[in-house]
Amino acid sequence: MTVGSAGFRASGVVTLTTDFGLKDPFVGVMKGRLVTGFPGVRIIDLTHEIAAHWPAEAGFWLARSFRYFPPGTVHVAVVDPGVGSGREIAAVEAEGHLFLAPDNGLLAPVLESVRQATARHVPAALLARIGVSAPSATFHGRDIFAPLAAEVAAGRLPPADLGAVTSDLVPGWIEEPTVAARQVTGTVVTIDHFGNLITNIEPRHLQGLSHPSVRVAGRDLPLRRTYSDVRPGDDLALINSFGVLEVARAERSAAEGLGVARGAPVTVVSKSS
Amino acid sequence: MTVGSAGFRASGVVTLTTDFGLKDPFVGVMKGRLVTGFPGVRIIDLTHEIAAHWPAEAGFWLARSFRYFPPGTVHVAVVDPGVGSGREIAAVEAEGHLFLAPDNGLLAPVLESVRQATARHVPAALLARIGVSAPSATFHGRDIFAPLAAEVAAGRLPPADLGAVTSDLVPGWIEEPTVAARQVTGTVVTIDHFGNLITNIEPRHLQGLSHPSVRVAGRDLPLRRTYSDVRPGDDLALINSFGVLEVARAERSAAEGLGVARGAPVTVVSKSS
Amino acid sequence: MTVGSAGFRASGVVTLTTDFGLKDPFVGVMKGRLVTGFPGVRIIDLTHEIAAHWPAEAGFWLARSFRYFPPGTVHVAVVDPGVGSGREIAAVEAEGHLFLAPDNGLLAPVLESVRQATARHVPAALLARIGVSAPSATFHGRDIFAPLAAEVAAGRLPPADLGAVTSDLVPGWIEEPTVAARQVTGTVVTIDHFGNLITNIEPRHLQGLSHPSVRVAGRDLPLRRTYSDVRPGDDLALINSFGVLEVARAERSAAEGLGVARGAPVTVVSKSS
Repeated sequence: MTVGSAGFRASGVVTLTTDFGLKDPFVGVMKGRLVTGFPGVRIIDLTHEIAAHWPAEAGFWLARSFRYFPPGTVHVAVVDPGVGSGREIAAVEAEGHLFLAPDNGLLAPVLESVRQATARHVPAALLARIGVSAPSATFHGRDIFAPLAAEVAAGRLPPADLGAVTSDLVPGWIEEPTVAARQVTGTVVTIDHFGNLITNIEPRHLQGLSHPSVRVAGRDLPLRRTYSDVRPGDDLALINSFGVLEVARAERSAAEGLGVARGAPVTVVSKSS
Repeated sequence: MTVGSAGFRASGVVTLTTDFGLKDPFVGVMKGRLVTGFPGVRIIDLTHEIAAHWPAEAGFWLARSFRYFPPGTVHVAVVDPGVGSGREIAAVEAEGHLFLAPDNGLLAPVLESVRQATARHVPAALLARIGVSAPSATFHGRDIFAPLAAEVAAGRLPPADLGAVTSDLVPGWIEEPTVAARQVTGTVVTIDHFGNLITNIEPRHLQGLSHPSVRVAGRDLPLRRTYSDVRPGDDLALINSFGVLEVARAERSAAEGLGVARGAPVTVVSKSS
Repeated sequence: MTVGSAGFRASGVVTLTTDFGLKDPFVGVMKGRLVTGFPGVRIIDLTHEIAAHWPAEAGFWLARSFRYFPPGTVHVAVVDPGVGSGREIAAVEAEGHLFLAPDNGLLAPVLESVRQATARHVPAALLARIGVSAPSATFHGRDIFAPLAAEVAAGRLPPADLGAVTSDLVPGWIEEPTVAARQVTGTVVTIDHFGNLITNIEPRHLQGLSHPSVRVAGRDLPLRRTYSDVRPGDDLALINSFGVLEVARAERSAAEGLGVARGAPVTVVSKSS
């Protein structure tokens, strides 16, 4: 597991993924702490509109987004219904990237998406050493994660110093799709801005199926390459640009049109007979 | 047309205008590609809340916003209902700025707003040369526009190398206002955050009118200088800070109050008699 | 009052707080002006979702957020129902930070939160000197505040040059909580992204109360340390991470659950008997 450790060289880039929204100054003051701790930091918002208290979505997007950032990036994800309780802080190093999040299952999709990773629990003694003491009980994004990320992003705190290695992170929130002989069933993890239904079904799950067809909300939809393969208003499924099955209505909202919400099942069946 | 070409010196600034929203990591991963390709890039969001699949609004705002950025800025606009189809990628150089967008009419308002411009279609061979190969069928913002913009913003790819000059861009989505002897009729292009109705009518369209009065939704409104020229709750029209006619209700939402939506007609009539 | 003045050394950081929203390019063009005037500027959004035309909320958050930014930061806040009227532009220096806002009561909470401050009215002659002439009547954020902030953040315009010192700023919008022997009554200043009710009651107001209980919308709620001290779905009050009393429903929306909106009274009573 030392491969990952050797691989991290701070790029100075920090990404932020939270359920804080943009209505209040929560994200702004996190950035204030980051730029105070590391004036050269380059901060990029991944999203702050994760469904409130739903860490699964944060990990889902992070696992499918982090490779578009330079190696040496620190990815901070804070979706934290248990803030102020005794939950640990997880630091995961993988593919030259460093992930910081509450240890509540959020990072499970990242761990599932990489070959090798090193996970650590950040000890309170380390936080005290970098000046984090008496954090608020409700806003660890600002009081713990931001100053910690600033240290790592500035190259002052190597990942190997982030605590003892552990293999005991809290497991994820969403089950893997169930794969049977002629049928795969997954879950709508989130609805995107356009109303597309984003599932956790990946091409590898579909390898045993010939002529796949997608069943959702009582309908059978064709699996196509892109939105413009059907007429505006028509439903389709496709493998989207993040590598997962998506159900869409071309130039419309599939969520509204089909009446489907987060958590709904989506089944891909083999139509060959 | 070589004037514009000679005029572009990369400032390192990239603006982004999309209909991707901020709910998902779409914009974040575009920025990841930008900072990967050009670590010194300075990225500024113009807006990501363009009405979905409505390129007209993106071009409208871009044409009225780009001059507030430094010369040498690369403006990336992606509102792209035809993504994955055969539509071209347009690069337009004007007034020392460089615009990248799908060639679907989005950039027409920019072309209409400048004296001189050089338009090009970016060839696939160029994309391959900068390492863009096998882009996804659905997310060209991340897979094509971001890496292309990084090359231009970093000064590694001069506009003149972006392809053969063309005069054959796809035309715009909104008709120019109709100007008659005593009457000008335009269109509500978008509703802003405050509920103000933003039209495409400019002062030059009104030059023939004396004592203009504005008709919308069956009402006649006075043309004033600023919101505080009327009492809170009163309706007015004004030439707004982007140089177009706007219908507002002081400290309220005109869209809600008047029941007017995007696409509605607005008429300015001459009241002299 | 010269203490503050001597204390400001520009950090190059500018924060933005507005009610402009992110739907339109208003914030983007402000940033364009900033980066044009000062290419090295580092811009951080505090929030652009202040309730429209409600300066009180902007000042409330700013007073509780500015210390998380480095000394030498310029904080620009534009919530400006009187734009285009004769209202002045206020520049306040405090604790090594510099605040720019319309003089409409917005900065009153900042002044209340610091021991020493120097307030100035920015004269038109100064604006003319830095190239601000003929600003639009409706968008001073772009036409006045952004170029002015760029000068100060770049270190070209020291706070002492921002105009004559005044003690005559417009007063704030929200009354201080009323403190009686066994009861304190404050106001819900804003509802946050999670539906928590954010009040203006601070721990210092509660010092005379023993066993405090919080009354809102006809209910009595316990005062706890953090959300996870109660079960999901249960109501509680706590002193939040910004140092004010907050009413929350764990992992739910208190605003929806309790039917409470901005401006509602919240009372803390002493339960000892």
